[in-house]
Amino acid sequence: MTGVNGDRNNPLRDHRDKRLPRIAGPCGLVIFGVTGDLSRKKLMPAIYDLANRGLLPPGFALTGFARRDWDSEDFGKVVYDAVREHARTPFRQEVWDRLAEGFRFVQGSFDDDNAFDELERTVRELDEQRGTGGNHAFYLSVPPSAFPVVCKQLARSGLSHDEGGWRRVVIEKPFGHDLRSAKELNGIVNDVFPEESVFRIDHYLGKETVQNVLALRFANQLFEPIWNANYVDHVQITMAEDIGLGGRAGYYDGIGAARDVIQNHLLQLLAFTALEEPTSFSSDELRAEKIKVLKAVRLAHPLSETTARGQYSGGWQGGEKVPGLKEEEGFNPESTTETFAAITCEVETRRWAGVPFYLRTGKRLGRRVTEIAVVFKRAPHLPFDATMTEELGQNAFVIRVQPDEGVTMRFGSKVPGNQMEVRDVTMDFGYGSAFTEASPEAYERLILDVLLGEPSLFPVNEEVERSWEILDPVIEDWASRKEGPDSYAAGTWGPDSSTRMLARTGRHWRRP
Amino acid sequence: MTGVNGDRNNPLRDHRDKRLPRIAGPCGLVIFGVTGDLSRKKLMPAIYDLANRGLLPPGFALTGFARRDWDSEDFGKVVYDAVREHARTPFRQEVWDRLAEGFRFVQGSFDDDNAFDELERTVRELDEQRGTGGNHAFYLSVPPSAFPVVCKQLARSGLSHDEGGWRRVVIEKPFGHDLRSAKELNGIVNDVFPEESVFRIDHYLGKETVQNVLALRFANQLFEPIWNANYVDHVQITMAEDIGLGGRAGYYDGIGAARDVIQNHLLQLLAFTALEEPTSFSSDELRAEKIKVLKAVRLAHPLSETTARGQYSGGWQGGEKVPGLKEEEGFNPESTTETFAAITCEVETRRWAGVPFYLRTGKRLGRRVTEIAVVFKRAPHLPFDATMTEELGQNAFVIRVQPDEGVTMRFGSKVPGNQMEVRDVTMDFGYGSAFTEASPEAYERLILDVLLGEPSLFPVNEEVERSWEILDPVIEDWASRKEGPDSYAAGTWGPDSSTRMLARTGRHWRRP
Repeated sequence: MTGVNGDRNNPLRDHRDKRLPRIAGPCGLVIFGVTGDLSRKKLMPAIYDLANRGLLPPGFALTGFARRDWDSEDFGKVVYDAVREHARTPFRQEVWDRLAEGFRFVQGSFDDDNAFDELERTVRELDEQRGTGGNHAFYLSVPPSAFPVVCKQLARSGLSHDEGGWRRVVIEKPFGHDLRSAKELNGIVNDVFPEESVFRIDHYLGKETVQNVLALRFANQLFEPIWNANYVDHVQITMAEDIGLGGRAGYYDGIGAARDVIQNHLLQLLAFTALEEPTSFSSDELRAEKIKVLKAVRLAHPLSETTARGQYSGGWQGGEKVPGLKEEEGFNPESTTETFAAITCEVETRRWAGVPFYLRTGKRLGRRVTEIAVVFKRAPHLPFDATMTEELGQNAFVIRVQPDEGVTMRFGSKVPGNQMEVRDVTMDFGYGSAFTEASPEAYERLILDVLLGEPSLFPVNEEVERSWEILDPVIEDWASRKEGPDSYAAGTWGPDSSTRMLARTGRHWRRP
Repeated sequence: MTGVNGDRNNPLRDHRDKRLPRIAGPCGLVIFGVTGDLSRKKLMPAIYDLANRGLLPPGFALTGFARRDWDSEDFGKVVYDAVREHARTPFRQEVWDRLAEGFRFVQGSFDDDNAFDELERTVRELDEQRGTGGNHAFYLSVPPSAFPVVCKQLARSGLSHDEGGWRRVVIEKPFGHDLRSAKELNGIVNDVFPEESVFRIDHYLGKETVQNVLALRFANQLFEPIWNANYVDHVQITMAEDIGLGGRAGYYDGIGAARDVIQNHLLQLLAFTALEEPTSFSSDELRAEKIKVLKAVRLAHPLSETTARGQYSGGWQGGEKVPGLKEEEGFNPESTTETFAAITCEVETRRWAGVPFYLRTGKRLGRRVTEIAVVFKRAPHLPFDATMTEELGQNAFVIRVQPDEGVTMRFGSKVPGNQMEVRDVTMDFGYGSAFTEASPEAYERLILDVLLGEPSLFPVNEEVERSWEILDPVIEDWASRKEGPDSYAAGTWGPDSSTRMLARTGRHWRRP
């Protein structure tokens, strides 16, 4: 009960919040690749923020593993700097001091048996010193090529299982680069960790707005009756970045926008948008619905018209001249890797048959935005004079995932004046202004869920494989073509082929 | 085409407005009761605003008729003061000068044959001097007791009909005080003017937000599918005033809130909310749908539980101590006239069967507000833990008629945090911020419609009579009871009986 009482006095907790927070039980977290960007910018700050919110157990331990010649104190300084720079919640010395007592560092490379034996000893000592009770999660913030060796080392050293406690592994995308490699990777991980101990991070699923898709759909009476092919014309899911590849150009070559974003984030957003109501939000039932809907997803054909890909060329963005992809350092100018990808899916269920789902993502687009736009058919009959509805578009319900989290509804309203003219207007709900509770970072939610053993928001192997199965034909089709990706100017919304992809059925992309 | 071209240069016209405005043809307007408040505060300013917006014909004539010993110049000064004080649009001298050329005044009382003969001559002269072409509307801004004599005088003097032009009569509520007297009044008016020449003003129907009910419902795909008993739990229509009777106490005695507001405004709002889609918004088709739905309205029984009435007692409002009804000057302290009235209706159609429509109105309530709130059933199943939906109410779609014109939607959204908790949030659409076009005053719209001969927004005799037919049993029931109206403190939302009226079926009034 200490945790709960402590939490009641927590200044970060909204006094209206009557919920008993779920606090992680005794445990530790080991991060591989602790010197990387993700670790510094996201994981370390999220861990501090969780501690600050009173959601970590008192004896929580954080162990770093890397080649760097550090001791635990050096490691502590790195975490400190990361927290001061990137944490979401205010710095409180007493929280930091308590958290820092649980920091450990193990130096070594992934092929170094001794280092893993040392890690195993460190973890056992933590159980004694900090009461972590044999419960440890291993966060593989490392390239996928390192997954096999780390998994094998965890198995060899005995770290991957414990009689008394739990062991979990956290992996970051990419989960393979096609169906075959994904299966191979899942095989390697599942050889060491049973599927229920594998937590695949798709940080989009940690976002409040994504989880809110389920709340909006199923807590309300207003939306679900029109959430189907009778009323919906099509769905647009967009994840646009304004930045280019910059230093990541070398890494990105051979991956591309479809593998990097559509396979995971956008197909997951599609699943949340299109799934049938689960009996409850328990992870088993939610996943079953996600898998069911992903199994119903089909690509629209012919792919030459229903997909689009592009590479950005130089242009102007935010008042600055920016280089084209081919000018980015480290990028092979012969590469056909796309920085823009769009596909057309159909969902073959009674609810969605005939409704196109358009998915697009790209770099160097007009602005940074992620949104799900459900666009409705026009009213079947308009009892207005035709000239009075010229400025009436289609109704839309837009879930703004980032950066401006919220919901927008677009509908027609009478224009003030003596005639019955209608014009599109919007109404907004903004997360920021509606709640005094600040939205936790996606990584706070996801790391806490790992420590709680709450798997709802983590895609299972079957979802990952099914997503590749959907996407593989697109990538193969693109690879088989003589011509490469179309060019699009930085700061625009992608190549003309993307516009044509919707125009062929008389539709158009929203300007988000 | 002069009007249209002139209008293109009109600074009050939004340049985006591509519509050809409908401008009244040559005509004149005669106002009886021109010295009254309504005339000064609403009619005169509205006429100027219409002229300023370029919607009146160049030779438009305004004639005042009253007992006052004025000439046309005196009358012009009164109009000038009224315009400078109450007009919505900026004063433009050239508009005023042109308008003022058409001012005339005829002095006399309603039983003075000579005065009406003089009026007839004036109108004929206007046809010659101003080119009004025999087209004249007569605005009876007078007590209903004067309707018969004025109508008879208009007939006797030959003003009520013209071979070459049109003659119309405009009357203000009350249209009788029960079904019998309404029929009698309609008979007197229709003896002189055919029904298509009678324009009954319900100024609520001139409000943008009321007309927007039709635009919202029928221009969109989002709302109509859930606008029925499958999804709607009940509808609340509220017109609340914060002011008391003040100087009107004598006039109000014997009328009361039900006759004054429910019979006309609220039943008309109910009709707009509940009607079936007309084939077009032509007046015939719209009225047919309104009459159809009014014919389907039934009072819920027993009236002792499904209605409520009250008289305000003294209290505090807006930080001021205000007197109770019985202390208002001129009010008979024995009177059982209610200042608060609420009734429960049902609409016996396939669409609405089983959905209560709660109508309430009152003086000295919490604040001045008119709104239509469509309150939806809870989702049939909530796949959430019960504790996670404690702060989730019923979805609502609220059309804010005044003073803050717009639309509010209330729905459940996920509360930021690690659990799937949902809480009510709202999103708003505000007329004021959505359109650069300012909303015309209701009287601008309605006077223009009279001059255009566009009858959509004016209730016909059948609607008026049907509304009394609905309300009469309530008034009779109240009159038959031994106990008088309940008391409620000024600044509250009415008597306890109003709360009980909803509580008997587990519902409650919104706090608007």
